[in-house]
Amino acid sequence: MDDTAAAFTERDTDGGTWRFPADQPLRLESGATFGPLEIAYKTYGRLNAEKSNAVLVCHALTGDQHLASTHPITGKPGWWEQVVGAGLPLDPERHFIICTNVVGGCMGSSGPASLNPATGQPYGLSFPMITIADMVRAQAMLIEAMGIDSLFAVVGGSMGGMQVLQWAADYPQKLFSAICIAAAPRHSAQNIAYHEVGRQAIMADPDWRGGGYQLAGVRPEKGLAVARMAAHITYLSEAALQRKFGRELQRDGLSWGFDADFQVESYLRHQGASFVDRFDANSYLYITRALDYFDLAASYDGVLAEAFRGARHVRFCVLSFSSDWLYSTAESRDIVRALNAAGCRASFAEITTDKGHDAFFLEEPAFDSALRGFLAAQAEKRGLA
Amino acid sequence: MDDTAAAFTERDTDGGTWRFPADQPLRLESGATFGPLEIAYKTYGRLNAEKSNAVLVCHALTGDQHLASTHPITGKPGWWEQVVGAGLPLDPERHFIICTNVVGGCMGSSGPASLNPATGQPYGLSFPMITIADMVRAQAMLIEAMGIDSLFAVVGGSMGGMQVLQWAADYPQKLFSAICIAAAPRHSAQNIAYHEVGRQAIMADPDWRGGGYQLAGVRPEKGLAVARMAAHITYLSEAALQRKFGRELQRDGLSWGFDADFQVESYLRHQGASFVDRFDANSYLYITRALDYFDLAASYDGVLAEAFRGARHVRFCVLSFSSDWLYSTAESRDIVRALNAAGCRASFAEITTDKGHDAFFLEEPAFDSALRGFLAAQAEKRGLA
Repeated sequence: MDDTAAAFTERDTDGGTWRFPADQPLRLESGATFGPLEIAYKTYGRLNAEKSNAVLVCHALTGDQHLASTHPITGKPGWWEQVVGAGLPLDPERHFIICTNVVGGCMGSSGPASLNPATGQPYGLSFPMITIADMVRAQAMLIEAMGIDSLFAVVGGSMGGMQVLQWAADYPQKLFSAICIAAAPRHSAQNIAYHEVGRQAIMADPDWRGGGYQLAGVRPEKGLAVARMAAHITYLSEAALQRKFGRELQRDGLSWGFDADFQVESYLRHQGASFVDRFDANSYLYITRALDYFDLAASYDGVLAEAFRGARHVRFCVLSFSSDWLYSTAESRDIVRALNAAGCRASFAEITTDKGHDAFFLEEPAFDSALRGFLAAQAEKRGLA
Repeated sequence: MDDTAAAFTERDTDGGTWRFPADQPLRLESGATFGPLEIAYKTYGRLNAEKSNAVLVCHALTGDQHLASTHPITGKPGWWEQVVGAGLPLDPERHFIICTNVVGGCMGSSGPASLNPATGQPYGLSFPMITIADMVRAQAMLIEAMGIDSLFAVVGGSMGGMQVLQWAADYPQKLFSAICIAAAPRHSAQNIAYHEVGRQAIMADPDWRGGGYQLAGVRPEKGLAVARMAAHITYLSEAALQRKFGRELQRDGLSWGFDADFQVESYLRHQGASFVDRFDANSYLYITRALDYFDLAASYDGVLAEAFRGARHVRFCVLSFSSDWLYSTAESRDIVRALNAAGCRASFAEITTDKGHDAFFLEEPAFDSALRGFLAAQAEKRGLA
C-alpha cells in the first residue's frame, strides 16, 4: 500500500510506504531539510477506538520494519517474533504495533539508495547526514499522520533504545511509557572505533566507487561483508562464542591454509555474506555515523538528566544484559541515574545471560518476563486491561 | 652482518641474518620442511664466558627483532626500550639479549615476502604454513648455532608469551627461567574471529592478487590497514580509549560527513596507515594463522599441565594486565594452574592497569617492578649477581 499523505484509516494499516508531500520535509539536526520524505512501515494489530494501544518499536542498526512477519528479501522470520505475537509481550490482539524503517535505511524509507526525484538517480553520498533525532522526528511525523496523539509505549533495543531515549527527550508529551533495552546515552570511543573500522572497510572496496556504486551497477560486497563481520563480534559475548564454537573445526584436522578451518570462521563468513544480500553499503555508512554522533546529553550542556525533564509522567523501563560489552550495564545505569535525577519513574533490570548484546533478539526467559511484567502493569494503568 | 652458518664469535653478535645451510632445514609442525632458512636477529650486550647470561626475547604479532634500538624502517625507538637498556630490567651491561624476527615475518627472517632461491621469485602463498612451535624451533636452531646451551631467561608478551610457553614445552632443558606476559595457552573463538576479520579484509583487497601482489608491483594497503585498525582496538582497553579520546573532536564541530570527526577515528586511521609501511600483508596472514592454530594442550591430549612436565627445574613468572580483554587474566591463571599441576615453580601477578593488552609496551611501574624483582632473584640463583 502506498499512501500519499492520504488519510490514514484502520483498514490500511498493515504496512506500506508513507509519502509525505513536498511541503512536509524532514527538518534535520544538521540544519538542512530533506524532502520529499518517504517512510516505510509495518503494523500488526488494530488501533483501538480510544487510540490508546499504539506501540512504536524502533529497530537496531541493521534491522528494519519487518518485525514479526517474513522478511521480503531473506524469507526469514521477523527479527522480533519471540516478543511480538499472540500471547507474547507485544500482542497484536491487544496492541497496535508499528515499526518504521529508519530514515537513512534501505528497506523503503528515504535513504542513500533511494532515487532522488529531482535527478532520477540514487542519492548516494548526496543524501544528507541523519541523526538519531532525525530518525525519531520522521517517526513522529508518521505517528501524527496516523492520527495517534499518544503512544502506549515506545520500545527498542540497541540503536532502537537510543531512539527511545530521544523520543523521551523530544516528544515526551506523546509517550505513556518507554522501554530502553541494551542501549547507551552516547557512543563511546570504542563504539566509534568499531564503526570506523567498518566504514573504512566499505570505503576501501573499489566497488564502493566513492559512494556511486549503484550508477556503476556494482556493490562493495566484500567491504560490507568485512564491516559486518567486525561488528558481529561485538554483538556476541566471548562466552557465547566459546560455548557455540570454541576451537571446533569445520573438518577433521587443520587445512594448513587460509580456508575456514574453525567453525567460528565459517560462521562469521556466513554472517558477512548473507548481510550484503539485504543491506545497502551507503546506508551502513549513514546509520553508523548517526550512532557515532549520538550523545543525548550534549544538547543539554552535558547533563543527561536535563534531557528527561519533560518526561516525568512517562513510565520508563531500562533493561541491560550482563554479558553485553557493546552497550554495557554501566551505560544503562547511567540512563537510570539520569532518569532518577530528572524525577522520572524508572524500573531497571540487568538480565543475567551469557548471550551478549544480541540477547534481545534471542530466547531469554528473564527478558521475556521483564518485558511482559512492565507492559502488563502499564496496560492496567492505561486502562487497556 | 651475514653469517653463513659461520662460527659465532662474540665480536659479531650485534645482529644480522643467520643463513642456515640447505642441509639444516626447518622441520615444520605441518610435517613439511622448509629451507634454506634465514633468521634475522638483533643482540644487545655480550655473552659472558660461562655463556650463562643469554636472554631470548620473543616478539608479538607485529613486532620484530628491533627491540631496543632505532627501527630501520620507521626511525622510531625499539619496541621495548622501557624494559631493555642501562639500569632497566633487561640490561645489556649484565645480560646478552637476543631477539629474532619470527619465521614467517617480514623483517629479514624467511617469510612469504622472501625470495625463493629456487625460483628467484617471492614465495607468496607458496610459503609453508608455520606455527608457534615452528617459530620456537627456528629460535632454538639459532641459539644452538650461537653455542648457547642454556638461556638464563626466555621472555615475551602476547604472541611472545605463547612462544615462551612453547619453549617450556619443547626445550625445557635449555631454560633456566621463563617469563610469560599477557598471553594465553590457546587462541579463543573470539581471538580467531578477530583474526579472521583481518584476513578477510586483506584478501578482499583486489591488490592482494591472490597473495601475488609483489610480482604485480602493488600492495593491499587498504585491506591491511583495515585489518590493523580492527586488531588495534583489541590491544587497548575501553577505559584507555575513553581516557585518551572519549568523544573529543578533531576540529570545532562535526563535519556532517565521513571525514574523521572524532580523534579516535583519526588515531585509528593513523595506526592503519603507518602499519602498512612496515609490515607485509602475507606475513600478517601467516602469523595470525599461527596464532589461531596455537593450542598448547592439544598436543598433550588436552591436558595443559602435561606440556610442562619436563620443566620442573624452570622458574616461571606469569604476568597479566587487569584490563587486557584480548588475553585475559583468567587465561594467565589457566597457565599458572597448569604449571602448578605439573610441579613447576611459578610466580604470578596481575598488574592493575587500565591500559589494556598493550600495557607491556608502555610505562607501567608495577610491571617494571615485577620484571625487575623476578629477574634479580633468578640472577642471584644463577650466580650472575
